[in-house]
Amino acid sequence: MGNAPAKSPFAPKTIPVMPEIAGVRFACCEAGIKYQGRTDLLLAVLAPGTRVAGTLTQSKTRSAAVDWCHEQLKHGNARALVVNSGNANAFTGQRGRDAVKMTAEAAAAAVGCQPEEVFIASTGVIGEPMDVSQFARLLTEMAQKTQTDDWLGAAQAIMTTDTYPKLATASIAPDGEERGCNINGISKGAGMIAPDMATMLAFAFTDMLVEIDVLRQQVSAAADASFNAITVDGDTSTSDTFLVFATGQAGTGTPRAITSASDARLDCFNQALNAVSFDLAQAIVKDGEGLTKHVTVVVTGAEKDTAARRIGFAIANSPIVKTAIAGEDPNWGRIVMAVGKSGEAADRDQLSIWFGPHRMAAHGECAPDHDEAVAAEYMRNREIEIRVDVGVAQGQATVWTCDLTHDYISINSDYRS
Amino acid sequence: MGNAPAKSPFAPKTIPVMPEIAGVRFACCEAGIKYQGRTDLLLAVLAPGTRVAGTLTQSKTRSAAVDWCHEQLKHGNARALVVNSGNANAFTGQRGRDAVKMTAEAAAAAVGCQPEEVFIASTGVIGEPMDVSQFARLLTEMAQKTQTDDWLGAAQAIMTTDTYPKLATASIAPDGEERGCNINGISKGAGMIAPDMATMLAFAFTDMLVEIDVLRQQVSAAADASFNAITVDGDTSTSDTFLVFATGQAGTGTPRAITSASDARLDCFNQALNAVSFDLAQAIVKDGEGLTKHVTVVVTGAEKDTAARRIGFAIANSPIVKTAIAGEDPNWGRIVMAVGKSGEAADRDQLSIWFGPHRMAAHGECAPDHDEAVAAEYMRNREIEIRVDVGVAQGQATVWTCDLTHDYISINSDYRS
Repeated sequence: MGNAPAKSPFAPKTIPVMPEIAGVRFACCEAGIKYQGRTDLLLAVLAPGTRVAGTLTQSKTRSAAVDWCHEQLKHGNARALVVNSGNANAFTGQRGRDAVKMTAEAAAAAVGCQPEEVFIASTGVIGEPMDVSQFARLLTEMAQKTQTDDWLGAAQAIMTTDTYPKLATASIAPDGEERGCNINGISKGAGMIAPDMATMLAFAFTDMLVEIDVLRQQVSAAADASFNAITVDGDTSTSDTFLVFATGQAGTGTPRAITSASDARLDCFNQALNAVSFDLAQAIVKDGEGLTKHVTVVVTGAEKDTAARRIGFAIANSPIVKTAIAGEDPNWGRIVMAVGKSGEAADRDQLSIWFGPHRMAAHGECAPDHDEAVAAEYMRNREIEIRVDVGVAQGQATVWTCDLTHDYISINSDYRS
Repeated sequence: MGNAPAKSPFAPKTIPVMPEIAGVRFACCEAGIKYQGRTDLLLAVLAPGTRVAGTLTQSKTRSAAVDWCHEQLKHGNARALVVNSGNANAFTGQRGRDAVKMTAEAAAAAVGCQPEEVFIASTGVIGEPMDVSQFARLLTEMAQKTQTDDWLGAAQAIMTTDTYPKLATASIAPDGEERGCNINGISKGAGMIAPDMATMLAFAFTDMLVEIDVLRQQVSAAADASFNAITVDGDTSTSDTFLVFATGQAGTGTPRAITSASDARLDCFNQALNAVSFDLAQAIVKDGEGLTKHVTVVVTGAEKDTAARRIGFAIANSPIVKTAIAGEDPNWGRIVMAVGKSGEAADRDQLSIWFGPHRMAAHGECAPDHDEAVAAEYMRNREIEIRVDVGVAQGQATVWTCDLTHDYISINSDYRS
């Protein structure tokens, strides 16, 4: 696969201190699925009573593991999570389905639960059969040496060509209460990275007890504002998975479930979940392959919020917009093009465009006071904001992306090996 | 704008011999709009009675010239075509609309027709006001020195960063007749090429007399099978324009119009129009910026033809598919991903994929007889065919694209200057 890509300029210099989440234990091992000399298999063991909700890739060619999770999310009970890196077990036919079933059975035996309570995610090469013959032995060993504190190890085990491990945590307490809602999360992904490596995976864990319908609703909303608002190259993996586990082990005594919006703790849970989801999603887009810039695209004035988001993605996914950003060119003409091709209503003669604080276009033409040199100076920043008002109505959205560079081409055109 | 991009490896080694088209005369000049030392303004003068039909960009931010053509296509009468390169006159507000009106009036005065019979296309920088103050003088001079045979000059005058002029011709006669239907065409475009340069333009000319409704129908069908089936980078210009002019000047005596499908000449006209449109469109995709490969994507087994085309474009526009092709990697896993993200129905477990004659995947998994080394050898060809059967129904489509290379990034990230 050639040389490892250079570390993202946005790789964090610190790792958050992650609190324990009661009811969550981890173990990792080197299963040798593809990588040598690093961990590639993660087992998370979850306390009895853990509820789970999630969102899965919309791909029509999704992996066997995604099919399995889709099925098990219907009941929402979880006792284990198994994640491997190096092989996506996607497009592997009946053998792939068998591998998922064997993994679930092996984990269930190791943990002491039903196979249907095991959630599975795989990331790596598409189309190669995955050898799971050692999983029963490995998972049994792992179940015997789980720990509560190795969040960094868990984040590292699920990496493919990520250039840094991705962790986030949030703790928010209701007014006047000391004990808050804790959520920890890990994620991986850097777009459809080096040859055959795909997939965004994210997992969050809380010790709150959350009623399943409430959990589903909050997870869906949190995903929409975080993972569904980022793009590296517009390509959708066969395996994208976001799962949120609520163990209900917080505090002592019998836990009281969050069952409705009238529960004051729901707001704290929401805030914490949104914060963790946002951080995990930003960690992914800031590790986009070959990136040099992190780009925020804000669209206002659209027909609806959904229209604003589509316009945002038309901008964020446009190769010529992304290459212009790489070239530090305040090329607002390409933004005009991208707005036009989105297909969403836009009033050409009311369209305004800003790079950061600098208004480049106003009311359908070049802004009279715009200063190309000042804007070019702004484009030298590592964090770029593009703002567009399309002048139709009140719809708005924000999406995040990165630039498109020579390194993206190098990373993705290297021959698999 | 840095160095001129290297000439496309697909640049033709010959230029077709173009017959005269009765009723079409050309003149070009150096208007100095942006380029120096080359022609950048084209006037085509068309015989009285010329009918025109066309297709225009679907962009919501289309240029003032496109707005103008949209309006004039309603009556379908044409006496002149004015095309400039170097400035797209897009996103230029009221000044842009005024520039179009002044150009139409100047050409009408020079040619002796109504402004509404003048068709206009502009290609080049977006958002810069276009100075047309010299157009009245220039167009008057040009109208006095038109020629019937300078098709190459016409094709050159409309180029922006195209690496070669694009011409095509076809002549098809009904069985037993000597005198056929002649169609000549010119086009320009190479994707959203070097900084701010956008736009695909194509113009075809025939001396047949074609009833306007028939002409519109045929032009729409021809565009669909040619220009609407190519993509370089998925970006849609503000100015894309395809116009077909039928002068009705063929032969001697009073021409007889093609008015219905029962006219035997319609089939010839169709064949010739399709051939010219196809050649002009292929000339564009073979001049895609930075390309090293020409790629044909054939999709079969889709729900409908429209679904097949969407799947084809999901493959043809995927950055990771295009970079794999640049890297000569028979990476069929990325094709699986692209099919999945298209959103169209696909039976994952019936999906089959070929690179040229080499079947890589069959019935939802790696084909048992596939040979990676042989496929890698195939990928070294300059012309690549990717074939996908999605196993749902009978819908099919073919689209064309090119690979995504370092040169694309270089061309598009250079700062405008």
